[in-house]
Formats: sequence, structure tokens, C-alpha cells
Amino acid sequence: MARLVVIGGGAAGMSAASAARRHAPGLDVVVCEAGGFAAYGMCGIPYYLSGVVPGAADLLAYPPSEFRDRRGIDLRLHTWVSAIDPAAHQVRVHQGQAPGAEGGDLLGYDVLIAATGAVPVRPPVPGLDGPRVHAIRSLDEAVGLRELLDSGAVRHAIVLGAGYVGLEAAEALATAGAEVEIIEALPRVLGTVDEPIARVVQAELERHTTVRLGTRLDEVRGSGPGLTAVAGGTETRTDLVVVAAGVRPATGLLIRAGAGHLPDQSVRVDASMRTSLPDVFAAGDCAALHHLVLGGPAWVPLGPAANKTGRVAGTVAAGGSASFGGVVGTAAVKVFGLEVARTGLTLAEAQAAGLAAAATDVVARSRAKYYPGAQPLHVRLVHAPDGRLLGGQLAGREGAAKRIDVLATALQARFTVADLAGLDLSYAPPFAPVYDPVLTAAIKAAGPARPVPSSAGGTHEPAAAPR
Amino acid sequence: MARLVVIGGGAAGMSAASAARRHAPGLDVVVCEAGGFAAYGMCGIPYYLSGVVPGAADLLAYPPSEFRDRRGIDLRLHTWVSAIDPAAHQVRVHQGQAPGAEGGDLLGYDVLIAATGAVPVRPPVPGLDGPRVHAIRSLDEAVGLRELLDSGAVRHAIVLGAGYVGLEAAEALATAGAEVEIIEALPRVLGTVDEPIARVVQAELERHTTVRLGTRLDEVRGSGPGLTAVAGGTETRTDLVVVAAGVRPATGLLIRAGAGHLPDQSVRVDASMRTSLPDVFAAGDCAALHHLVLGGPAWVPLGPAANKTGRVAGTVAAGGSASFGGVVGTAAVKVFGLEVARTGLTLAEAQAAGLAAAATDVVARSRAKYYPGAQPLHVRLVHAPDGRLLGGQLAGREGAAKRIDVLATALQARFTVADLAGLDLSYAPPFAPVYDPVLTAAIKAAGPARPVPSSAGGTHEPAAAPR
Repeated sequence: MARLVVIGGGAAGMSAASAARRHAPGLDVVVCEAGGFAAYGMCGIPYYLSGVVPGAADLLAYPPSEFRDRRGIDLRLHTWVSAIDPAAHQVRVHQGQAPGAEGGDLLGYDVLIAATGAVPVRPPVPGLDGPRVHAIRSLDEAVGLRELLDSGAVRHAIVLGAGYVGLEAAEALATAGAEVEIIEALPRVLGTVDEPIARVVQAELERHTTVRLGTRLDEVRGSGPGLTAVAGGTETRTDLVVVAAGVRPATGLLIRAGAGHLPDQSVRVDASMRTSLPDVFAAGDCAALHHLVLGGPAWVPLGPAANKTGRVAGTVAAGGSASFGGVVGTAAVKVFGLEVARTGLTLAEAQAAGLAAAATDVVARSRAKYYPGAQPLHVRLVHAPDGRLLGGQLAGREGAAKRIDVLATALQARFTVADLAGLDLSYAPPFAPVYDPVLTAAIKAAGPARPVPSSAGGTHEPAAAPR
Repeated sequence: MARLVVIGGGAAGMSAASAARRHAPGLDVVVCEAGGFAAYGMCGIPYYLSGVVPGAADLLAYPPSEFRDRRGIDLRLHTWVSAIDPAAHQVRVHQGQAPGAEGGDLLGYDVLIAATGAVPVRPPVPGLDGPRVHAIRSLDEAVGLRELLDSGAVRHAIVLGAGYVGLEAAEALATAGAEVEIIEALPRVLGTVDEPIARVVQAELERHTTVRLGTRLDEVRGSGPGLTAVAGGTETRTDLVVVAAGVRPATGLLIRAGAGHLPDQSVRVDASMRTSLPDVFAAGDCAALHHLVLGGPAWVPLGPAANKTGRVAGTVAAGGSASFGGVVGTAAVKVFGLEVARTGLTLAEAQAAGLAAAATDVVARSRAKYYPGAQPLHVRLVHAPDGRLLGGQLAGREGAAKRIDVLATALQARFTVADLAGLDLSYAPPFAPVYDPVLTAAIKAAGPARPVPSSAGGTHEPAAAPR
């Protein structure tokens, strides 16, 4: 019987295993997962830490028995792969051993799917290897951290980094009752959005936490309760440090085996998720994906694509036909009471890619002017000189996280801002103004200076009479 | 000085007048509005009736002085137009007189924009002309009705009709404290969505009101407090009847003047909003608009298009260049705690248009499985045999009203359901599952039976591992 080995039991790996099983019921499917949990919602970890999600088991899509007994997948937890031998079609497997252990067993494969994900970057700061210093990328680690939080031992916490994970961690720790201080080396938060949106996010953070920007963490002293963090020349007593300084592709295995990769170490794949190694696929956060706006591969490690690319890799590995069309880089995050979302390229990303781009900003209401509860919605559109939409960002207390999907769809359709301005979007007073904020931004971006044959063009003032 | 006359001071008329003024500062702009209010949010009337919006003036986009003093628009309230003479370029105007009055004055125009809107259908039921029987299409009428509600005189109310306006009226009256009974001649509510979605709406209505479907109102007896409504063989004592049995185009003026129109009496216009009459434009609810899915004109009277077509008509009438690209029929409505939205064609509409169409239904969660507060979201996609998306419908307690915009955008992009399944939509646990409900529906619609080269295809089961 032919065998598929999947390395990694996260979103991509379990999607791959399940898709392969569906496509080829006779295939032997083995999943090697280094941790003690598989098929869990990694993005739910902050909500488990905060107590919003009661138990670690709540994050499991299915219990291990679902895979073993009902789907016939040989799911091996605490099982770590130390090497891939693509010529011999074998992996070296270590069960119940800590990473780095010698020995292990050889496991042959006919097809291999690497879904090894990404790992947190640990900046080279003295003391970041102590026991009260955590990343929150794995559920195994989160279980211990939640126990610590539940014990009441964390009255003050430092979060190192102000990206998605740092902001979600800060909210989780604050919700769990800690006083939270965010330390970020850059002079602004959330590098995945442009500065005008980042400032909205920063203001919300400052309502709930202490934010120290442009500040490096120099050292963490102490190893038990009562740490001392040294940053920017000041010492802060704290009970916990959460490291959220970004992630990098966990591709050492693949690259040592010879897989082609980008300079950032993410592994190159084709639309079927095949790597450059024979019979070896990659899926999820370890792979570079086709970016539809950039027109080339890019590393954008996010949950939906992990699930989808896992499914494609599993289907093709099992002999089926599927392909992954690509991403536009859509992401959303809740930051306390704020929704923040982005898609495509930021202005900074567009400029870094050598594109002549401009940005248009508007602040509009989330509901009809007269309907109570309307909140300001910040909209930024990024567009090329010919009007082509390159990206968009939204922030607001309601209506931002999913409204970005209009822009993600418009990017996939290669719309111009004039096309966007002509969209027939939904309207009812409780849900939007008569000109949706996205339309208001698009009309302004299409602008009076540029003829707009397919729409009214002209000023971006609100219409005389909303309904 | 050249003169533009605009008939109607609603959303379309005031948008037209303002756009014309911006484009041609030297133009004489006269707006004739039969009622006592202009530039108000007609869609806000139910929320004014319920008390959610405190005062009638809150619904005004701008006070009349804004138009008269700051924009230089000659806004004439209580001014009714009884005839258009296209050959003489004149309209007959009656100021301060009731419709139907003799006499009036002639007012010449160089260009005319008819923004006469739509009027409620009054079914031929004896007693529907009584003083406690209201439509809620004009703010003038709503002011009187709000006074009646504020007086506490309405303990029981009957709403005739279960379309958008009927449902919003029912919610408004219930919120204002009345016991509400909805009477609808058809065997189902909300004919603008297909039955599976209508049943979700009906269930929500039945939590808050009495719903009598397949029932005709035969007679209303009495004229003051204590009406008796006879319907379906039973008599009901009530204090108020609100007629919400649909609207028809208010196009008598235009059609008597010879304007081309559809069988439903909506007036034909080109992309610049020109009617078949020389120098006469139409905008808003009186006009048939280009329907991008049907590929021809259709009467879809909704607020956003009224504003946009008013702006186009005003710009072109003032000598500028603009065009209206068309609609896909996107609409949203709040029905008590439920959001309901639709775009494109329902299955019934597609079949009525002679299209071979099918529908795909899913019920998915509005948030990640483990995130508290997730609500069921009902999604229906309507698609052609070649996979082209023809329409969509959504209903749920959160995330339905604006999520429809992804489908509206996909329709405008002429996407197939496979294209839709490949979209990179936003994900974060508080806002959506890792496979957005729209994607889950699209993957199911693309289906295992149909090869889907650009996406994974296969089953519509959720992925093994959400994030």
C-alpha cells in the first residue's frame, strides 16, 4: 500500500491528511506531530489564554480519535521528524523524544507533505530563555501559560512585539487581569498596515495597555516570580514576558534536503504545492504562495491559506487534481474594541515592490448618519497611477474586519478604484451609510482629476440626500 | 441663464441638484418638492417611527437653508408639478396647492430631471382611505403617525404586506410598544429572497409579531380609535393599519409626456440617465436601471442607486460627463435581531428570466467554532450550469448585511462559484470561521461533480483544522 507521510499536525497538515484520505481511501496516511495536540485552532490560543475560550480541548477541530478511528489516519503525537532523505524516500522519526535527540527510526514514504509551519523568532536578548518567558505559538506551551495566569501569579506582563500576535497576546493578558506593557523596537505598531491605520490601533492599545515604541528589550533578569525587564534604559518589574517578535518559516528540514526556497527561507511550491524535491509537497506557513497582486511568490503565513493549501497538497499527493490560485494577503485582527483589517499591498509594501502607488484615506460612518451607534470607520485604499487597486486597509469599532473582503474580492477581480466606486453594495441604515465607506473612499480615489467613464466621478462629498 | 428644473426633492432629486450646481455654478437650479421636507433619509422613517431616531429633522441630510443659502439651489417645498410639456420645455407648477388643483404656473426649463420616485400601492380594500390607515413613504405622513404613536393610542397595529417596508414597519411599531399583526396575501414573507431564507425571516418575525400568511385583508371598518380589520374570515380590533403592499413608479407625469417605459411603468433611461424625451432626465426610483446580471433594464428601486443616478443625471444635465454602470440588485434589511441581505437574482427570479439555474444552501457559523457568540449564518448561492454566479442571499443574527457585498462584487466581476471559492477572505476567530461561510457555500456549489481547475474543489466539509 502506498504511503503518504505528513510532517506537522496543524491546520495545513491535518487538512492535507484528510483530503488525501477522502481522495484515496486505500492510501496509508501517517501524520507526525511534534507536539501533544493536532488539528487545533492556533489562532484561538490568545482567546484560550484570556479565558474567553474555556479549555484547550475547545480549540480542537476534532479529537485525535476522529482521525485515528473514523478517518483511518495514523496520527502520531509527540513524534518529531529530524531529516528527510528525498532520494531514499525516507524520513527519520523520533517518537516521544525531545527535539535534538539522537537515533530515531526510518519511515519510508511514497509521497511526503511538509506542513511544518513557522516558529517564533527569539531575539538575542539575555534572559529570554527563562521559564517565565513564553511564545504563544503552540497549544502545549499555552496550556502551561494558562495555568500560570489562572493561578493569579501574573499581575504585570510584558509583550515583546506589536504585530498581530503581540496585539492579540496583549488583549488576552489584559482580559485575564494583568497590567500589560507592550515593547516594540519599531517606532509604530502593526507593520502590516500603513501608519495612518497604525495610529488608530495605537490609540486603542493605549486605552488598555502601556505602549513603548522605538524601544529595545535589553535584558530579562530573574527566572521565577519577579522578573526584571531592562528596556530603553529603564527597569520594570514584571511577572511574565511574552515574545511575539514575529515568526519565520520552519523549513530547516526541507532546505537541508535541498528544497528550493526564497531568501526568507519559505519554500517554493507550484500551484499543486509541489516543492522542487521529487514527491515532496509543502503546505501552510512553511510555503511561499503565489501573491496575486505582486504576481510572484511571497511568504504570507495565515490561517485560511494554510487550510486551503493543505487540502490542495493532500488531494494532489493522493493522485487527485487541484490547484491553489493564490493569495492577496487578507488579514483581520481584533485589538480590544477595534477591528483592523488589510488586504493586498500597503503603500509601504507597494513602494518596496517598486510600484508607483498612492493612497487615499477617508473616515466615514459605519451606519447612516441618523442611526444611533455609528462609529468612525477609517478606510485607506492603495492604488496605481492607472487606477488599479493594489490594496486596502480598514479600522473601526464595527464593520472593518469583514468589509475588507470587498477589497479582497476587488483585488482578485483586478478592479480599478473606478470599478470599485461603481459597486452596488448593500445599504440599510443600521449597517452602512447610503454610500458605503468603501465607496466613499473609492470615489475620492477615482477623483475629479481623473476621468472616470464608468461612474459618476466628481467630488467625494456625501450625496445630498442619504436614505 | 439656463435653467435646470428638478421634480422631486428626495435622494435622487437633491443629489441631482447638488451635482448640477457643483458642475455648473452659473446654472439656475429649481427643485419642486410636493411635500414639506427635502433631502431626507427615506429609509430612516421606520427608525423615526420607533423612536430610535428622535426627531424628523434628524433625518434631514441638510436643512433647506443649506440648499437655498449655501448651495444656491431654489428649493421650493409644497410645490407640485402637474404636467410636463417637452415640446415647449415647460412644466406646470402648483405651489401650496393640493395635488389635483386647477391652475398653476408655467415654469420653463432648459433641462429637466424627473426624480419623482415611487408611491405605495393601495390595494382596493374598502376602508383603506380612513384616517388611521397610513403608508410610511413620506416624512410628512410619518410625522403625524409618530404623534399618534407617542400619544399611546396605538396598542395594536396591523401591517399589510411583508416586504422590506412591511417588515421594517412591523419592527418599528413593535419597538414603539404596539402589538403587531402582519397580514400578507402570499404564502410567505419577503418575496425578494427565496423560500429557505424567507423561512428564517418568518421565524424571527414570529418571535415578535403575529404573522398571517396567505391571508387577504377584506375590509377595514371604523375611522377613529377602534378599527375593525376583516381578514381571512376573522375580525380583529386594531388601532392602526399600515399599508406596505409594495410600491410602483411615480411616472404618470413622464409617461403622459411621452417618455418610453417598461411594462411596469418605470421609465427607460440610458447610462447618462436621459429619457426618450429631449432634455429630460430621470433618476432614482422612477427609472429602470441597467441590471448587470440580467443584461437589460429592470426596476429595482433602492436608495444607493437613487443617490448615484441623481448625481449622474445632475452632472450630465449641467453639461458634464458621467454615466451609471448599473446595479446588481443588492439590498439589506434588519428584521428585529436578524440581518437579511440579497444580491443578483434569486432562484425564482433567475428561473422567471428563463435561466437554467440552481441554488446551493449552507448554514455556517459566523465566528470560529470555539469563539463564543457564534450565530448560524444561512447562505444561498444561485448559479448557472456553467458555474457563473447569478445571485446570493444571506440571513443571520450577525455578519449577513455587509457580507453580501462580497457576492455583489463577485457578480460585478462575473465570477463563477469556483472563482468565489478561491477568494482570499479575511479571518480572525471573533469575525469568521477559517473558511468564511461564503467560501463554504462556494466550495459546495463548485462541487465534486464539476472539475474546478482553479481551486481545491472536492467536498464542502469544513477543513480538518480551523485556526
